Amino acid sequence: MTQRLAVGIDIGGTNTSYGIIDREGNILAKGKMSTTEYADVNAYVEGLASKVRPLIDSAGIENMVGVGVGAPNGNFYTGEIAFAPNLPWKGVIPMSKLIGDALGLNCTLTNDANAAAIGEMKYGVAKGMNDFVMVTLGTGVGGGFVSNGKLIYGHDGFAGELGHITAIRDGRTCGCGRKGCVEIYCSATGIVITAEEWLAERRDETSLREHTGKITARLIHEAADAGDPFALELFAFTGRILGLTLADIMAICSPEAFVFFGGLARAGNILLSHVHKHMEENMLRIYQGKVKLLQSALPDADAAILGASALAW
Amino acid sequence: MTQRLAVGIDIGGTNTSYGIIDREGNILAKGKMSTTEYADVNAYVEGLASKVRPLIDSAGIENMVGVGVGAPNGNFYTGEIAFAPNLPWKGVIPMSKLIGDALGLNCTLTNDANAAAIGEMKYGVAKGMNDFVMVTLGTGVGGGFVSNGKLIYGHDGFAGELGHITAIRDGRTCGCGRKGCVEIYCSATGIVITAEEWLAERRDETSLREHTGKITARLIHEAADAGDPFALELFAFTGRILGLTLADIMAICSPEAFVFFGGLARAGNILLSHVHKHMEENMLRIYQGKVKLLQSALPDADAAILGASALAW
Repeated sequence: MTQRLAVGIDIGGTNTSYGIIDREGNILAKGKMSTTEYADVNAYVEGLASKVRPLIDSAGIENMVGVGVGAPNGNFYTGEIAFAPNLPWKGVIPMSKLIGDALGLNCTLTNDANAAAIGEMKYGVAKGMNDFVMVTLGTGVGGGFVSNGKLIYGHDGFAGELGHITAIRDGRTCGCGRKGCVEIYCSATGIVITAEEWLAERRDETSLREHTGKITARLIHEAADAGDPFALELFAFTGRILGLTLADIMAICSPEAFVFFGGLARAGNILLSHVHKHMEENMLRIYQGKVKLLQSALPDADAAILGASALAW
Repeated sequence: MTQRLAVGIDIGGTNTSYGIIDREGNILAKGKMSTTEYADVNAYVEGLASKVRPLIDSAGIENMVGVGVGAPNGNFYTGEIAFAPNLPWKGVIPMSKLIGDALGLNCTLTNDANAAAIGEMKYGVAKGMNDFVMVTLGTGVGGGFVSNGKLIYGHDGFAGELGHITAIRDGRTCGCGRKGCVEIYCSATGIVITAEEWLAERRDETSLREHTGKITARLIHEAADAGDPFALELFAFTGRILGLTLADIMAICSPEAFVFFGGLARAGNILLSHVHKHMEENMLRIYQGKVKLLQSALPDADAAILGASALAW
């Protein structure tokens, strides 16, 4: 019997998504659970397995080629999650082995942005591209670098940490301990920090001041959509920093496109127009006017599990 | 008859080297000529062909598989040299076609740093490595990025411009028109600019003040070798900037090694000890203590023509 289905699992900082997916990228079944409520990783894996097993059983385990997992700080070579600041479990977690054993299937793991890149390359806007860069703008900033049609994993499996390139020398302290990382400015977390700094330092009128709870990236996006100049300036500032960084990345791998995905990327042109302007103005002349900025067209939850499932083939 | 020899040509800003090379990297014949004395590219190609033809004839043109060329701003896909600031010819030059026609052989071209990377991978210190970065520190700064055992050319053939990553935001104006590029600080040209700035601004005693002609990188290297504190500080400054840049490059492609080549790299540990220190201190934790800094062990003129010749196979 031909094995024709794969399990895709996306471990996110907040939620974990999973699905049963065929080779063409059709999602036969899917679901979602909390990541954060499991302080213990073994309890998490057991919780996950109890949700995924019924889906596997109903599709028939004999049809399964294996499991693919995308996770923050995931390592393709070792199958481990190492020192992930945005997950509840500290140190090095042999996640691929834990999930594989729990489900009785072969399991392959990579980092979440790499999984998203594979998803876009197989089923999304990067179909047919040999050289592109996936940029995930969520709680953190992630990168998946594709060159010659293959992901750049590096010699140790840890390549692609776009979020931890220095954007501003001696800038804000990042969650990783370094200073001025792209992530601490251009993630959903980063734009909120900028907003809070500006609200404390400046006197602008903005609808964000009227908000009583914690400010979120979504709130800033909604304010910008409604034309709030302060919120629009937050996106301009964030887009400039990201654009300057991408101008430098051009000089390394000259991709055909940057593909954007994740919560903050949903702002679309409110953000990307500034990314585009500052990237073009700051890149080496030979690259100007060539690279595309694309938004992922896959539904949010789907892109991650599609990419993860593709690892299993 | 099996074709078993290739022509390797390295077009440098000052000189052009060429050789006849077998598949094992043995150089059967070689020579050198000026690049700068040819203001006209057609005269240059005719001058080059008149030197290379006798070598081809004596080895037998029937033994030749083709010609490989390394050149600044060379493009592997188009065979063109585009807007090279360090060459006498402006605009876009179809160099691969010009040389191929002049010699009556197939010709393949790439940029000089990519050619050096191929040379190191086939015959040098990067033998057997699938993921490494070539760093050439000459008149300019070049890069050759190897991932999954293949060069990263990018979608347009212009990837690998390591010299044109921003090292210092709003820093010195680079020859390319951008500001603060690695090249304008960390090349032989860059360290001389730093020396001239410091000599004008500061009062340190240094043997460089006693020198009457134009200061060169070689002179700074000799002074540093002799223990001149000012010259040593110049290398510390230059090494720090390069180290900070490489710390960020780790986050993109996590190479097994950086391989250094070119005039300034000859300073060895006088430079690389500072590169190493600042790279390690500034990289993401997961990369620390893993990457090697290696100096090319191939004789200077040979590495470039060896790499270029390997393109022909």
